[in-house]
Amino acid sequence: MQRLSLYLRRLEHLAQEGVSTVSSRNLAGQLGTTAAQVRRDLAYFGQFGKAGVGYKVEELAAQLRRILGTDRTHNVILVGVGHLGRALLRYKGFRSRGFEFVGAFDIARSKIGKTFGSVTVRNLQEVGRLVKQHDVRLAVIATPAEAAQDVADMLCKVGISGILNFAPTTLIVGDGVTVGPVDLAGALEQLSFQTYHAPMS
Amino acid sequence: MQRLSLYLRRLEHLAQEGVSTVSSRNLAGQLGTTAAQVRRDLAYFGQFGKAGVGYKVEELAAQLRRILGTDRTHNVILVGVGHLGRALLRYKGFRSRGFEFVGAFDIARSKIGKTFGSVTVRNLQEVGRLVKQHDVRLAVIATPAEAAQDVADMLCKVGISGILNFAPTTLIVGDGVTVGPVDLAGALEQLSFQTYHAPMS
Repeated sequence: MQRLSLYLRRLEHLAQEGVSTVSSRNLAGQLGTTAAQVRRDLAYFGQFGKAGVGYKVEELAAQLRRILGTDRTHNVILVGVGHLGRALLRYKGFRSRGFEFVGAFDIARSKIGKTFGSVTVRNLQEVGRLVKQHDVRLAVIATPAEAAQDVADMLCKVGISGILNFAPTTLIVGDGVTVGPVDLAGALEQLSFQTYHAPMS
Repeated sequence: MQRLSLYLRRLEHLAQEGVSTVSSRNLAGQLGTTAAQVRRDLAYFGQFGKAGVGYKVEELAAQLRRILGTDRTHNVILVGVGHLGRALLRYKGFRSRGFEFVGAFDIARSKIGKTFGSVTVRNLQEVGRLVKQHDVRLAVIATPAEAAQDVADMLCKVGISGILNFAPTTLIVGDGVTVGPVDLAGALEQLSFQTYHAPMS
């Protein structure tokens, strides 16, 4: 799954550069995997490159978009409109990949009614109504760690089934709900580890 | 590596809650891995839990911090002080894990001289001097996609060896430099895939 997402990103980059076909070896090389792995991954979805020609960039990208569900727009809500939340509301990468924020929620009166990006902040108590109205399944949590579990419970109750969690805490959710943890400090930690411990070259 | 970081996060949470020992099974269960995997991972670093007792939470956390290099402070710089960059400068999770922003850089005159979090934005041309002065090895790139490769080239030249990249593009760097890509839209894409394609439960 993560690899499909990487393939798509790479293919979109190649398409922008006017490249029309790409070999599995070329795709693999730029993503740190192997040509055999690329062929296995894509064959699983019924896509086969032509020997000596490779994959058609646009066609494969379109198919991956379908598989990943990014060929249509997904409604997303955000809870927690602090600095990070505001930055996420304005982050262009989401919209270009088919995700549209249709609501933002906070509990601070000073924030309710303000607009960031194209979204106006509402009282968290209204979340259930908006989720139903816009058939929202995905939510982003960008609250402080202390508030995140309560927010997750609330989101599960109103029918959210996927949560991208930026709060630095582990969320516990019921069956049928998926949490994608985004651990920004962990990412820096891993990089630091590789930088300081890797053999010098 | 990623698992070590998750173990540490979990252990810190347990320590906060006053838990003094934890079994490999318990650690594994909360992180979606197996007890055998936890024991293998930790044994690799010479840490062995006691049968029937488990691991000492504080002791194991301290050792993981040493291994991960988070027992000391690492200086970090940020390039690209847009909405996301500003949110990252203020993100508390970095400092609590031992990362300290010692500089922020942009090319927009309107931003230079302004302070976000505890850091004042400087002209990108001064980056080399600051990197030397503070012995900085880690950088965060939060520029638009178009600018990221030029910035990465510049950072490599002044001696940065680890780059956490938030710009939605793939960076090419020389040997001895590691890039940690943070693909926010990709994370949402994967979550969306799991949410829409997973068997309902």
